[in-house]
Amino acid sequence: MKKLKNKVLFIFLVTVFINTICIAQESVIEDFVTSKTTQEGKEYPQVNSEGRVRVRISAPEAKKVQLDIGGVKYDLSKDGNGVWIGESAPQDEGFHYYQLNIDGASVPDPGSLYFFGAGRWGSGIEVPAKDQDFYALKNVPHGEVREHIYFSKVNNSTRRCFVYTPPEYNENTSEKYPVLYLQHGGGENETGWSNQGHANLILDNLLAEGKAKPFIIVMDNGTWRMPKKSNSKPQEEGVKRTWPPQGWADGFKNTLIKDIIPMVEANYRTFSDASNRAMAGLSMGGMQTRVITLDRPDLFSSVGMFSGGSISLEDLKKSPDFKEKVKLLFISYGSRELENPRQSSWGDPKENTQALKDSGMNAHFHVSQLTAHEWQSWRRAFKEFATLVFK
Amino acid sequence: MKKLKNKVLFIFLVTVFINTICIAQESVIEDFVTSKTTQEGKEYPQVNSEGRVRVRISAPEAKKVQLDIGGVKYDLSKDGNGVWIGESAPQDEGFHYYQLNIDGASVPDPGSLYFFGAGRWGSGIEVPAKDQDFYALKNVPHGEVREHIYFSKVNNSTRRCFVYTPPEYNENTSEKYPVLYLQHGGGENETGWSNQGHANLILDNLLAEGKAKPFIIVMDNGTWRMPKKSNSKPQEEGVKRTWPPQGWADGFKNTLIKDIIPMVEANYRTFSDASNRAMAGLSMGGMQTRVITLDRPDLFSSVGMFSGGSISLEDLKKSPDFKEKVKLLFISYGSRELENPRQSSWGDPKENTQALKDSGMNAHFHVSQLTAHEWQSWRRAFKEFATLVFK
Repeated sequence: MKKLKNKVLFIFLVTVFINTICIAQESVIEDFVTSKTTQEGKEYPQVNSEGRVRVRISAPEAKKVQLDIGGVKYDLSKDGNGVWIGESAPQDEGFHYYQLNIDGASVPDPGSLYFFGAGRWGSGIEVPAKDQDFYALKNVPHGEVREHIYFSKVNNSTRRCFVYTPPEYNENTSEKYPVLYLQHGGGENETGWSNQGHANLILDNLLAEGKAKPFIIVMDNGTWRMPKKSNSKPQEEGVKRTWPPQGWADGFKNTLIKDIIPMVEANYRTFSDASNRAMAGLSMGGMQTRVITLDRPDLFSSVGMFSGGSISLEDLKKSPDFKEKVKLLFISYGSRELENPRQSSWGDPKENTQALKDSGMNAHFHVSQLTAHEWQSWRRAFKEFATLVFK
Repeated sequence: MKKLKNKVLFIFLVTVFINTICIAQESVIEDFVTSKTTQEGKEYPQVNSEGRVRVRISAPEAKKVQLDIGGVKYDLSKDGNGVWIGESAPQDEGFHYYQLNIDGASVPDPGSLYFFGAGRWGSGIEVPAKDQDFYALKNVPHGEVREHIYFSKVNNSTRRCFVYTPPEYNENTSEKYPVLYLQHGGGENETGWSNQGHANLILDNLLAEGKAKPFIIVMDNGTWRMPKKSNSKPQEEGVKRTWPPQGWADGFKNTLIKDIIPMVEANYRTFSDASNRAMAGLSMGGMQTRVITLDRPDLFSSVGMFSGGSISLEDLKKSPDFKEKVKLLFISYGSRELENPRQSSWGDPKENTQALKDSGMNAHFHVSQLTAHEWQSWRRAFKEFATLVFK
């Protein structure tokens, strides 16, 4: 009898639990509006105040349509007219890549703007953030983002970068400016920092409030490929295999030092000493910043690594000039990254940065609250970094 | 007996005819390669030497997948792995918008780059042209395309345009330049002339060959909306309804004259007299050029209309200064447009232009061979116009 009672109680509790889930799933707040990343004139995608993303697409003959965002696929449902609609669970504030799946085909949402990330041009959605004002398009003086095409001797090819010049650049024609070399992450390209990151608007807004010094930003393409395996030279015995592999950042380092920096300093009114040169990057771009500035601290006085590792006392031993030459070291992460740290060979970033600070370096550790390895973390990091650099 | 013979002959001929069609359809030349507009790292879309466009997409659960290009939908066929593949009939040389249809859903091809046209960001494909060299990316000095954000008093909003500055602009810092205001077509925007049109590369290449004078190009957004119907003011009796409606170009005219031109002349090193100011546009942008320059010939000395109507002796009567002030009038069409002329209230463009020439104007009529109302016609027109303007 007791057993049966327990069983009934168990079934009852399970039922309540399942119902609760269902009710929780259904209680979607109906205040959806188009996003900043919805194409002009299109009604969808939309976002609500919980951060849910709702998409809609007409696909009368389709059997199954899904919204694929944040690593989860959400089934849409079809109305009588063959139009599919549905929404995701609440997403973090900020920008996210996503796609639609129509009967097994992964395609961009025809209603969204497109961004280069995850190795492809595809859909992105902006979930409004409480602090979105700092990267909003406002009626303030604006700098220009210039598409600059140049020939790279290192790569024997024509390349392009984007160069931000501050609002006053066209006016103060005798003034020179410091330069930040700002790199995107893996699977992204030279368009990321302005399209997704709004680095130009962030700096425009900081400058309008007098919170940053004007500087030029150079955004180039740091994509690298695995070096081809040499058949003639077998793997040396005893050499530890690491990831990223030895020399992975050499290609971009050479392009940056031999082509990009000289090209920028020849074409723009820049100061060309290390005290007016900075490098920063996100994720892979942060790791490139790490490798390149540890190798050439004579070239850069400010260093920013956003979700891209950190620098330890051990690193400083191998790069003895770094501590003296680098006047600003800025390390940042999204709080969700720190909750679920990836395995890293560089140690704990907060502890590392504190150790450098204790040793006398001007080192900063920044955390973006409630964001992950995504653009909102990097927008916030860039904003903080921009208020500190070249001062 | 004779009847039967005829019937047999008829069936025989029909069979031969159908077979011929099938064979013709099947004789696809297998020399497909990725297009310049295929995303880096993607294998499809591809184009062959006939100008056929081949697309491929994995959609295992789909019942029907089509390639929708040039107003025709081509069925794709599915292999054993759920991958759909197929190609179009040969397309004209140059750039075309297209999309995929998956079980009734119209979506961008995940393998292509995206362009703004036909009122949306979507897929585009480049079919190699025999004369593609003139808009190719080469190792020559390159100008910059600058995203310029500004506040428009006329619209009480923040807008953006793209400004091309010639290669020498950053070097010859005391030099001033003439300015061309260059407008896109209906359903396109300020990105069209550089993304689809390659106006920057065309001028870079002409300058490298000494075939054009360096000038600045301003590409803004000329999209207009139907003015709201006034309830208080009924349609005047006897007023002929025309398309485009009376006053349709006033919005952009005001923005151009009151906001854009002053902004450009304040921010760039420009000459600011009419002899160093030109306006041109394609399709709707050509029609805007027509209306605006006929109304204000005091502001522009060179006028280009690409697939956007023409100017008649009758027009000159209503704009008495036009003939004297405008030193270059350039009218162009794709040959396929002239084969199938749209109904126009402006008369035959070739005859109109010849009449102006006969009356003493420096008027040019250009035809792009074997192209329609598409970008290849406008690239060629822009190239010709660029060699004539500001000389």
